[in-house]
Amino acid sequence: MGALHAGHVSLIRKAAAECDLVAVTDYVNPLQFGPAEDFAAYPRDVTADCSAAEEAGAQVLFAPTTEELWPEPSATTVSVAGVAELLEGASRPGHFDGVATIVAKLFGLAGRCRAYFGEKDFQQLVVVRRMVADLSIPVDVVGCPTVRHPDGLALSSRNAYLSPAERAAAPRLYAALLAGKRAIEEERATDPVFVSKAMEASLAGDPLFTLDYAEVADPRDLRRPDPIAGEVRLLAAARIGRARLIDNVAAAPPSATD
Amino acid sequence: MGALHAGHVSLIRKAAAECDLVAVTDYVNPLQFGPAEDFAAYPRDVTADCSAAEEAGAQVLFAPTTEELWPEPSATTVSVAGVAELLEGASRPGHFDGVATIVAKLFGLAGRCRAYFGEKDFQQLVVVRRMVADLSIPVDVVGCPTVRHPDGLALSSRNAYLSPAERAAAPRLYAALLAGKRAIEEERATDPVFVSKAMEASLAGDPLFTLDYAEVADPRDLRRPDPIAGEVRLLAAARIGRARLIDNVAAAPPSATD
Repeated sequence: MGALHAGHVSLIRKAAAECDLVAVTDYVNPLQFGPAEDFAAYPRDVTADCSAAEEAGAQVLFAPTTEELWPEPSATTVSVAGVAELLEGASRPGHFDGVATIVAKLFGLAGRCRAYFGEKDFQQLVVVRRMVADLSIPVDVVGCPTVRHPDGLALSSRNAYLSPAERAAAPRLYAALLAGKRAIEEERATDPVFVSKAMEASLAGDPLFTLDYAEVADPRDLRRPDPIAGEVRLLAAARIGRARLIDNVAAAPPSATD
Repeated sequence: MGALHAGHVSLIRKAAAECDLVAVTDYVNPLQFGPAEDFAAYPRDVTADCSAAEEAGAQVLFAPTTEELWPEPSATTVSVAGVAELLEGASRPGHFDGVATIVAKLFGLAGRCRAYFGEKDFQQLVVVRRMVADLSIPVDVVGCPTVRHPDGLALSSRNAYLSPAERAAAPRLYAALLAGKRAIEEERATDPVFVSKAMEASLAGDPLFTLDYAEVADPRDLRRPDPIAGEVRLLAAARIGRARLIDNVAAAPPSATD
């Protein structure tokens, strides 16, 4: 979606290290924004993106207009049931239809390739993997670790929306996820509701935050494991000022890593 | 969908004449059948299909099981709005979602290629073309003329359901389409409702037939042109005994071909 930051750059560098040719897609996809969301305000800077992509090792920046992508209005939608309906899907109806549709089209344009996605949008990664498997799309999907500021805040184009006070508070979302991770890994909690409450408690009392969800999920299908017996993903979303931030971390009970 | 007849064979021959390698897909796709439809009864004969495909010039027959196609149950659906909602889409809810989803998957498996579809399923061809354009799937879709019995009945695996009396009456569906074509091309009718009525009148009084629809459609988006000013497609569907037959013909007003 453009507005390239160090998180995107890490994907491009990894792709450049592993592939012969690297193309970066740079398109703020209207299909994945709800009517009340920030499509118009979403940061855009194709000139800066082009320099950043080239410096990181890309040979191609693909920044089409909507008219170039769809000379006639698109009638086709790709939907993923289950994994796309939970968490972000519940908070943002239609969001993952928009993601799956544009990603399927970009994969059609790219042809056989590897595609690098950040784990920051963990659910997106799960939805894309599910779509690629179901539709036998000849693309190897590669997940890449989230890049964070030194204070723990995950890099995101939407961090640009934060006021200085909000920016100072924002790392508490990551801290809440780490509180959930500690509950599983150190306190040996196996009850997902207990772990969610630990994450909620960590954010509670901060007047800047409105928590959307703080959940424990199976990393493959995003369903809530009960009890927690293997590796899980902790995912949270919260509103802070104009921004809606999401983040996630992996966690594993001591039994799973013994 | 297998049960290869001379219509399918004509597609394979055309593909063999135009391409280096021809693969025939042979899979009765459960996704495109409604719960009350003929999925279980649909004719299947992979051994005969294999001989017919090879004889017509194919190198590969791809006849997977559902478990081979989807080791995990599919969560992904490809939907085409507009063209998939009219005509067959209105009579068979969900049918074209099933068609678009399996065709997208087969195109994912095949990779860059030409794909040959019969005009017999004209709406399917329009839906597939729309999907391919919208999702930038690297497949060149080739439409091929309907193959007919000498009495005019379009070849179809579902003709196997007809009793001798029904088989004798079945060509009247094609005759009804030709009545519509005459109305446009000879009587110079430009009112689509008049043309539909001409087709309905042609079938009326036959106790074996229950007409689903007899429509005039723009060949690109299947919307009803009013008035008829350029080339159109006449499409009809009718139930006869256990079978539901569909057929279509092209027609053009004299003004369009002058």
